[in-house]
Amino acid sequence: MRFSKLKIKTLRDIKSEETSKGTTLLLRARYVVKVGSGIYEYLPFGLRVLQKISKIIREEIEKIGGIEIVMPALHPKKYWQQTNRWQKFDALFKLKSRFGQEFALGATHEEIITPLAKEFIHSYKDLPLFLYQIQTKFRDEPRAKSGLLRCKEFLMKDLYSFHRDEADLDKYYEKVKKSYQRIFRKIGLASIIVEASGGTFSKFSHEFQVISPVGEDTVFYCPHCHFARNKEIVTKLTKCPICDHPLQQVKAIEVGNIFKLKEQYSRAFNLKYKDRKGEEHFVSMGCYGIGISRLLGVLAEIYNDDQGLTFPKSVAPYQYHLLSLYSGDKKTDKKIKQAAEKLYDRVTRAGKEILFDDRENVTNGEKLKDADLIGIPYRVVISQRTLKRNSCEMKLRTSNRVRLIKLTDFVKITNNL
Amino acid sequence: MRFSKLKIKTLRDIKSEETSKGTTLLLRARYVVKVGSGIYEYLPFGLRVLQKISKIIREEIEKIGGIEIVMPALHPKKYWQQTNRWQKFDALFKLKSRFGQEFALGATHEEIITPLAKEFIHSYKDLPLFLYQIQTKFRDEPRAKSGLLRCKEFLMKDLYSFHRDEADLDKYYEKVKKSYQRIFRKIGLASIIVEASGGTFSKFSHEFQVISPVGEDTVFYCPHCHFARNKEIVTKLTKCPICDHPLQQVKAIEVGNIFKLKEQYSRAFNLKYKDRKGEEHFVSMGCYGIGISRLLGVLAEIYNDDQGLTFPKSVAPYQYHLLSLYSGDKKTDKKIKQAAEKLYDRVTRAGKEILFDDRENVTNGEKLKDADLIGIPYRVVISQRTLKRNSCEMKLRTSNRVRLIKLTDFVKITNNL
Repeated sequence: MRFSKLKIKTLRDIKSEETSKGTTLLLRARYVVKVGSGIYEYLPFGLRVLQKISKIIREEIEKIGGIEIVMPALHPKKYWQQTNRWQKFDALFKLKSRFGQEFALGATHEEIITPLAKEFIHSYKDLPLFLYQIQTKFRDEPRAKSGLLRCKEFLMKDLYSFHRDEADLDKYYEKVKKSYQRIFRKIGLASIIVEASGGTFSKFSHEFQVISPVGEDTVFYCPHCHFARNKEIVTKLTKCPICDHPLQQVKAIEVGNIFKLKEQYSRAFNLKYKDRKGEEHFVSMGCYGIGISRLLGVLAEIYNDDQGLTFPKSVAPYQYHLLSLYSGDKKTDKKIKQAAEKLYDRVTRAGKEILFDDRENVTNGEKLKDADLIGIPYRVVISQRTLKRNSCEMKLRTSNRVRLIKLTDFVKITNNL
Repeated sequence: MRFSKLKIKTLRDIKSEETSKGTTLLLRARYVVKVGSGIYEYLPFGLRVLQKISKIIREEIEKIGGIEIVMPALHPKKYWQQTNRWQKFDALFKLKSRFGQEFALGATHEEIITPLAKEFIHSYKDLPLFLYQIQTKFRDEPRAKSGLLRCKEFLMKDLYSFHRDEADLDKYYEKVKKSYQRIFRKIGLASIIVEASGGTFSKFSHEFQVISPVGEDTVFYCPHCHFARNKEIVTKLTKCPICDHPLQQVKAIEVGNIFKLKEQYSRAFNLKYKDRKGEEHFVSMGCYGIGISRLLGVLAEIYNDDQGLTFPKSVAPYQYHLLSLYSGDKKTDKKIKQAAEKLYDRVTRAGKEILFDDRENVTNGEKLKDADLIGIPYRVVISQRTLKRNSCEMKLRTSNRVRLIKLTDFVKITNNL
């Protein structure tokens, strides 16, 4: 992608009252633009990160049997009345059509997927079933101050599982735990599994948290056996209830959560199956969420330094950021430009993701500052000095070690990275 | 994909009062499920078609310079007040948060993209600019009776262009016309360009329509020079105003539309640029829409026969539908099953899209009927008869000509299709 085509101008400062460092950097680097409190739009850099996270999630969730569908955001009132959550769910956006019908905006999808599952599930042979979607959710949050970490509109992956009994649900629940840890590891986040409030039907649910000083949550954590419990559900805990080691109190950011719903929704919607003998039973359910746009915020919160963002390779919008740095001498600069154009062309044709800062009327200093801010992993520089040796300089965004690479060898060498 | 994993059961009849033949077939074949009037959810077959249409659109729109972004569905009231459409836009869904803020649900995005463009556009050097998104739209439609053709919630591609003057807008507008015709052709639809109401600032806008007896629109059409005008904006027209040939009155389905907005929205939001001399001008705008979920409905409306759907290859959910037809003899059926499993495995590994009806306890007749209903282009059958010759039978869904193919040659032969 050519920078000049994007017409993006990064920002030195932002006016709005963002309290989150990560979101501030995302706004300055033009990954996102704020439309209103808790409402953002995604420019190409931000959208590409969302797409990369989504791809990792899709691959992993399909490995554990997930089948992708898409449910609507407009939910007829009757579904939410059936679970009594039309009144009880505080953050539910509600609206009325000009013809008098009432709708909720999907804040979560148990009310929609349980009736849908009745279309699939009749006998024990139809179980287990795993349905997921990547879709936009809406929640009427109080004046949001955490940037992308808590939005009124956000992108989410939600998986729902359907089982013949709790033993089968328990087995799958443990499988999802492992899958989630793989997902977060691939995205570049070391997550811990934290016991949290279980709601009506279970003792605990589980949150996936990333330890970080900027976290909203406080967690009691055992560095020895990795036991962790959210402070929300326990007043004071000093020793690990598993291995008796002293616990640490750490700040952490939630990146995913999983719940055993058991028969809560299958009873509300009368979702039953017939066993081998023809006897009817309620289906046991689990639900498993990952906030994808929230993850963009979490990544920015964790991966940054004084100069800007430092995204991991697996989710960075591009892998290479090519800069042509000019000398001021017309003849030399023409050669620099030609060499950069040729390299960009070659690397693009090789199928690599490269952002080429081909902007005119932008100083070398501005190009370098923008590259620091945007935080693409590999920076590739062509200047008078490198061109003398028919080379470019490549360095990792987070390192000072510079490597000189012959322009003709670039594709071959980066293939082996 | 294994049919058994989807747990889908097709329907012989549907209860709901769909008047559209296409949507009825999509419901029966389980591409979509109805959640409420004008609200559908997408099961794997339907979702795959949407993804294929989206891919074709992305490729073509990027060829004409489009840059992909995503804007929100929640629009703070102030943006819609600024254009006076908060009151004037009948089908606008409106809602109030529990904290008193008011929002519109995005029915279209001029009110959001014009302020966004102010972040990009300052000088003539920032023009032209082409931004598009693939995103969910919401419209408070009267009791919808056209299935997927007119929904309260639907998937849309909307492109917005920004120009220094009307001449540049006109040029790009013609470019989009060609791009749209390529898109529809690739999707399998022969579109005609129809003059329609231009709104406040232009004489005409243009609709892309597909001639079909089930169309909602009536169009005066010249089969000689392809002039066409929507009956909505003209009372009676018998001769072509371009070439004087007699006009036909035809029914047609709208699949896309394009508008010259000119300065309507740039004036409302004060979107200006500075020319070479430093003088300020309002930006000229165009907008260009394609309803993606609507296209799924249109395809089903046009591509069907007495047995079911007959999707074109470019957008069908899968290319091959593999059926193992059993003989009733245990030993033979074990061999059929093994051969089918092996072929499925080989074809999947070759990267081809194949749906394998591996269901047990389903009769051969039901498998064949489902294949007719679902309408995947190539049907591949393994039975006692074909296995005797180490082969399978392949036929196009829409043809009776059957081709016998050696199982070991299948990948090679289909590579050359």
